[in-house]
Amino acid sequence: MIVPIEQRYSKTTASMRHSFIREILKVTKDVPGMISFAGGLPSPESFPKELLGGLFSQVIREEGDEVLQYGNSDGDKVFKETIKKFEEVPYLSDEEIMITVGSTNGIYYFTRTLIDPGDIIVCEAPGFPGSLAAMEACGARMIGVEMDEYGMIPDLLHKILGRLSQKNEPVKFLYLIPEFQNPSGRTMNLARRRAIIQVAKEFDLPILEDQPYRELRYDGKRIITLWELARTEFNDPKLVTIAKSFSKILGPGLRLGFASGPPEMLGPMVKWAQKSTVSPDCATQRVTARFIEKGYMRDHISKIIDLYRPRRDAMLKALESYMPDGAQWTVPEGGMFIWVTFDKDIDTDRLFDLAIENKVAFIPGSKFYPEGTIKTNEIRLNFSYATEELIDEGVQRLAQLL
Amino acid sequence: MIVPIEQRYSKTTASMRHSFIREILKVTKDVPGMISFAGGLPSPESFPKELLGGLFSQVIREEGDEVLQYGNSDGDKVFKETIKKFEEVPYLSDEEIMITVGSTNGIYYFTRTLIDPGDIIVCEAPGFPGSLAAMEACGARMIGVEMDEYGMIPDLLHKILGRLSQKNEPVKFLYLIPEFQNPSGRTMNLARRRAIIQVAKEFDLPILEDQPYRELRYDGKRIITLWELARTEFNDPKLVTIAKSFSKILGPGLRLGFASGPPEMLGPMVKWAQKSTVSPDCATQRVTARFIEKGYMRDHISKIIDLYRPRRDAMLKALESYMPDGAQWTVPEGGMFIWVTFDKDIDTDRLFDLAIENKVAFIPGSKFYPEGTIKTNEIRLNFSYATEELIDEGVQRLAQLL
Repeated sequence: MIVPIEQRYSKTTASMRHSFIREILKVTKDVPGMISFAGGLPSPESFPKELLGGLFSQVIREEGDEVLQYGNSDGDKVFKETIKKFEEVPYLSDEEIMITVGSTNGIYYFTRTLIDPGDIIVCEAPGFPGSLAAMEACGARMIGVEMDEYGMIPDLLHKILGRLSQKNEPVKFLYLIPEFQNPSGRTMNLARRRAIIQVAKEFDLPILEDQPYRELRYDGKRIITLWELARTEFNDPKLVTIAKSFSKILGPGLRLGFASGPPEMLGPMVKWAQKSTVSPDCATQRVTARFIEKGYMRDHISKIIDLYRPRRDAMLKALESYMPDGAQWTVPEGGMFIWVTFDKDIDTDRLFDLAIENKVAFIPGSKFYPEGTIKTNEIRLNFSYATEELIDEGVQRLAQLL
Repeated sequence: MIVPIEQRYSKTTASMRHSFIREILKVTKDVPGMISFAGGLPSPESFPKELLGGLFSQVIREEGDEVLQYGNSDGDKVFKETIKKFEEVPYLSDEEIMITVGSTNGIYYFTRTLIDPGDIIVCEAPGFPGSLAAMEACGARMIGVEMDEYGMIPDLLHKILGRLSQKNEPVKFLYLIPEFQNPSGRTMNLARRRAIIQVAKEFDLPILEDQPYRELRYDGKRIITLWELARTEFNDPKLVTIAKSFSKILGPGLRLGFASGPPEMLGPMVKWAQKSTVSPDCATQRVTARFIEKGYMRDHISKIIDLYRPRRDAMLKALESYMPDGAQWTVPEGGMFIWVTFDKDIDTDRLFDLAIENKVAFIPGSKFYPEGTIKTNEIRLNFSYATEELIDEGVQRLAQLL
């Protein structure tokens, strides 16, 4: 061919940003002796291999005529029924649930449904780069709102939306991870959830609620989701669409999640799914349905919690023991991440190179900010993958570099 | 919310067309006594349930730590190696193969990589609506080129590209199903393949070659793919990207396909995959790898051919026996479809309603044309799903309505 392929790319493709986190993960992978707190990986010890192996065999042999055939783009009806029971939302119609190829897939379709290039999405700063990258790839401009210990600050959100509204900027939705947020580990309390919904309603702005870690709570009590709050207290069932994942409770190699929201939102999302993946893997959907039906899920989640809680505690203890004065960190009630803030003069992008030399890895905080709001004195630490011993050793190594 | 959600849709979402074929399939599904030649479904008898059930159990139990973990967006390395052996392309680099969530998924990413709204894709008329819908959803304008018995007519293609080039229209690529085409069942012979590549090269136009049915050949000899022709005879390895599927040989409920093409094309396709599905299902990939490695695939494909060949023959025989003078049909060497052309005064959209009343279903030809080129005296008949007896009965029913 004459014209190079690179010169033929579509505008969104040509402007796609490089994923620094993927580069970082490559640098930290398979290095002997490396203690990595960088990834967001569940521990393989948490995978229910025996149960899943048995169920896959049974489902494919007994229900293969159905689950090896083309399935619905919105997902398996049997699986939807099981989800409704498991999530205690039996009143939902099938048009209000859509099964997705992991929760990022639902986030992508939601974005595709609403975003034209140049449109604005307001998110937490710091925020989850996987979602931010998917949104930016659709042409969205991301605007970050600062957080305090309870997540996004409603007054700041109000101020920013007010300013954007005055300038007639096309703000399309608000993207939030209210529980054990990635990367900060922070959880919005109930008052904060109400306040954020109030602001969203004032500006007539839909919310995309990302809840990949909700089942992994190690302390404290469950808080009502934004999705449920909007439907009940605020009597506005169309305001919030929620995306959930099975990646953190069954294993992310099985690409499975779901989204729930108003049919007007899910309808076009399903149409995008038809055109992109046709349907999620049907065998995986039915196996997960049987896993839930047989009552394995609650027990299994308890086991994961018993595995991860001591790891979180080990990391908090190690931070307490080894970190210098001036370092601060979040105390997450669940999830997989702790967010550490250092004195302003510590540049964690530089610290990263030093850490890699000393065989301990993390993700520098700068990688989690939408453009324009970057801070460079923070890091994200993952505590779900390494053992307690390695967590202690790794945090000590890191502290010695400061 | 105040502004209705429908008024918030992105431009591409708002302009998405309705899928008439999905509507048709709904009308024909689960009707007692209906003989349906409408869908494009493989027969459940073709699903290797026992083998797959056993392998899923083994892979998840023995390799679960790996296949339940996050996998690469470009696909499982082990699976790629197996594909290279199975396809007899050991010389390919990992950057030239990408695993996809079914082959439509690869077609979507290819389109996303090249198409800005308003760009043109040139395709066969009639063409495969699943792909056409995915392309139109990305904002592409589809321009169809008429076919004869050997597929797209090169002279016509040349004329159309010449005209578009004169008008400076942004033609981005050529989309082709060269074997057992959906819907026509036609296969390009070698001379035609060369001629089409020649025209594509003259206009410096990449080709997307869709090959979902290639393994299902019932007569005649395999013909070299456009992909291989371009790499060898034409010494232009960047010209063609090929998309293949496991849907027709293992079961479409397992969402698995792959694409092979130049790294400059697959690179951004993988980036789109990261943002949309993160990765294909890792367990399904590894199971399929083991299925191929253990030597099950060739035997299994032979069995499917032995199942479908008599069905094709039964349909051809029934058409010969029952169809009125003036009706003509293609004699496909493989795949799943026969294309029937009636006298010009027969409107197959009307015939469809009558057929449904008489409990026999097909897809009217009009549903397979890009806008502007629609013909209404043709139908697509699927022969892979119904038994030989039902095929005979169904074609007879249909002929009686003419």
